Amino acid sequence: MTRIRTRVAIVGAGPAGLFLSHLLAGAGIESIVIDNRTREQIETTIRAGILEQGTVEVLDSIGEHSRARTVGHRHDGIELRFAGAGHRIDFQKHVGRSVWLYPQHEVLKDLLAARTAAGQDIRFGVTADHVEGADTATPVVFATDAEGQPLEIEADFVVGADGSRSVVRAAVTGSSTGGYFREYPFAWFGILCEAPPSADELIYSNSPDGFALISQRSDTVQRMYFQCDPEADPAALSEEQLWEELQKRVPGTTLKEGHIFQRDILRFRSFVAHELRHGRAALVGDAAHTVPPTGAKGMNLAIADVLVLNKALQALLLEGDERLLDEYAEVASQRIWKAQHFSWWMTSMLHVAPDASDFDRRRQLGELRTVVESEAGQTYLAEAYTGWPLAVGL
Amino acid sequence: MTRIRTRVAIVGAGPAGLFLSHLLAGAGIESIVIDNRTREQIETTIRAGILEQGTVEVLDSIGEHSRARTVGHRHDGIELRFAGAGHRIDFQKHVGRSVWLYPQHEVLKDLLAARTAAGQDIRFGVTADHVEGADTATPVVFATDAEGQPLEIEADFVVGADGSRSVVRAAVTGSSTGGYFREYPFAWFGILCEAPPSADELIYSNSPDGFALISQRSDTVQRMYFQCDPEADPAALSEEQLWEELQKRVPGTTLKEGHIFQRDILRFRSFVAHELRHGRAALVGDAAHTVPPTGAKGMNLAIADVLVLNKALQALLLEGDERLLDEYAEVASQRIWKAQHFSWWMTSMLHVAPDASDFDRRRQLGELRTVVESEAGQTYLAEAYTGWPLAVGL
Repeated sequence: MTRIRTRVAIVGAGPAGLFLSHLLAGAGIESIVIDNRTREQIETTIRAGILEQGTVEVLDSIGEHSRARTVGHRHDGIELRFAGAGHRIDFQKHVGRSVWLYPQHEVLKDLLAARTAAGQDIRFGVTADHVEGADTATPVVFATDAEGQPLEIEADFVVGADGSRSVVRAAVTGSSTGGYFREYPFAWFGILCEAPPSADELIYSNSPDGFALISQRSDTVQRMYFQCDPEADPAALSEEQLWEELQKRVPGTTLKEGHIFQRDILRFRSFVAHELRHGRAALVGDAAHTVPPTGAKGMNLAIADVLVLNKALQALLLEGDERLLDEYAEVASQRIWKAQHFSWWMTSMLHVAPDASDFDRRRQLGELRTVVESEAGQTYLAEAYTGWPLAVGL
Repeated sequence: MTRIRTRVAIVGAGPAGLFLSHLLAGAGIESIVIDNRTREQIETTIRAGILEQGTVEVLDSIGEHSRARTVGHRHDGIELRFAGAGHRIDFQKHVGRSVWLYPQHEVLKDLLAARTAAGQDIRFGVTADHVEGADTATPVVFATDAEGQPLEIEADFVVGADGSRSVVRAAVTGSSTGGYFREYPFAWFGILCEAPPSADELIYSNSPDGFALISQRSDTVQRMYFQCDPEADPAALSEEQLWEELQKRVPGTTLKEGHIFQRDILRFRSFVAHELRHGRAALVGDAAHTVPPTGAKGMNLAIADVLVLNKALQALLLEGDERLLDEYAEVASQRIWKAQHFSWWMTSMLHVAPDASDFDRRRQLGELRTVVESEAGQTYLAEAYTGWPLAVGL
């Protein structure tokens, strides 16, 4: 058994954990990051990503390794399509901000490169089992290292940045599942295909057949999604059938088709842990909350959590001041519940629920019209999509 | 049996029917208005009323009899209260418009005075039974007059302005009930009391105990509502208990109490008839749609319908041009479904559904915060509350 010591033990080398280690290092606070995956697994698991302008701005702080602005694509708007017509929400016009289409695995490559270059202690293949002593000044993460040997990490603080199946969560909330929860009666069927882009910006399309999102990845690879049953079998449809399903949900645009080389089902789940901090342990990112993907808030919310927790940890560990830490859950929750609402709103406004009545369907179209016919409605949506102000200056 | 002839037979002497007779008369088109109630019943049935600025402006056309601006009260905002704090939505600041608190029965007194002075044929105590011949050029309203004698009114056009239990509706939709429909699992318990106002403007309060609306009527009489079970017995609570129920839903304001001299239960119902026009018959106002009262849209939507139908009837009856009539349902529906959405939105955002989960409740508070923290969110709400532009200039 090996027992090591650090100031902050960070469980999870996702965007939240890696970015927190970067911010802490900037304040001279040592940390260890562990993750049960290999570096290669982390860097090659393809994941979507829309970065709010504020997220790109804070990621700029990792320096030359941040490629969001150079490799990612700036989008100045999205299109809402319904009742056979498209309506562009112009982010620059309404809020003077943009978002960047830059996949999460690319953010992770950047963060891993930057943290490795800075000498960060990151241990891959280390599986956290549980946390003890959150009520004490020296909480301990009990883990198993890449060789199968027990590893204990004693720290001044433990951060659960270990995703939706967080093991740190139990030390914070008292159970591994305890939280506020909502499930949706649909999922997304996602595809990756070899084709040129069908549109310059994302198209969020509400159609009688259900929702579709036409997204982009590069000049030669595209990402698209359509609403499906959560129990759908990703292998059940032929490529031709997949294109039919997508195309009928985006009337007015002829999709550019190509070989579909990946397909997956994305479940929809809204979750917020009952507690975000207990003693010397706290949760950030997906360990603290998950949102349905329609609002594109997942990674952004993780970064927002980290900004708040970072300040609290600096106050605790550099000045012995617990006050910001005591406010962490309340401050983070404000943004989390706004983002939960926005994600629910975009989801509800754009999808066709299986049990939707004719009244519901017409009300939904009335809502979409109210939004796109109003400068204020478009601005309200653009503010949320591009991101409310971050607690950078706190 | 008496058979009479007119150009437009209007069933229902509510705001929609009476205002339509006024507009038609202005274009030289004769009409007869019938209603199964007496004039006294119409004028003394106390009903609430918030008039959009556009509604007040078009009611100005009835001249000296319109007292909305003199007897009614202009409100430049409302308060949204939740999580223990009040947030004023400033209509003048955000959209440069106002609403007028002026009860519907006062509007009816004004309209009846104006139409009577102008010599309008209004027949009280006449009960419409059904409409025949909507597919012909001479539809007929079959009715029973105040003396119990059969009365037939042959017209060029029949308008159903006869409220939510419309008998004209069957001639338009093919059934007396056919429509898009939504029910809510709560109602409003309304009271009238002898007390000074507790606030200058309306307070829409979301509390853990449910919704309350603190409204006003005059310097000495107030109207207030609180969310209740639709099956609640209005007589079951003492006056003291009613004040307790109201007060706990409006933390932060000490309500000015007084004798409660009227109490009623308002059911919540969203309805839009499947068809708004068939041949030579059309529906306006509550005959065409009902909305829950939270959005204060009922009477305003009726006036908006009438403005659209008036132009269509003028084109039909003065120029023989049916094109605007063919567009009536589509044009009116645009506003109806926006208003249905707004009414649903205000209702959903402010009430506590009996089956709401903890997630739903926190999301709702996240939504309220998102709205009041955003100039755009406040403007979006204010635009809808004060009323989207009317089709006056069509």
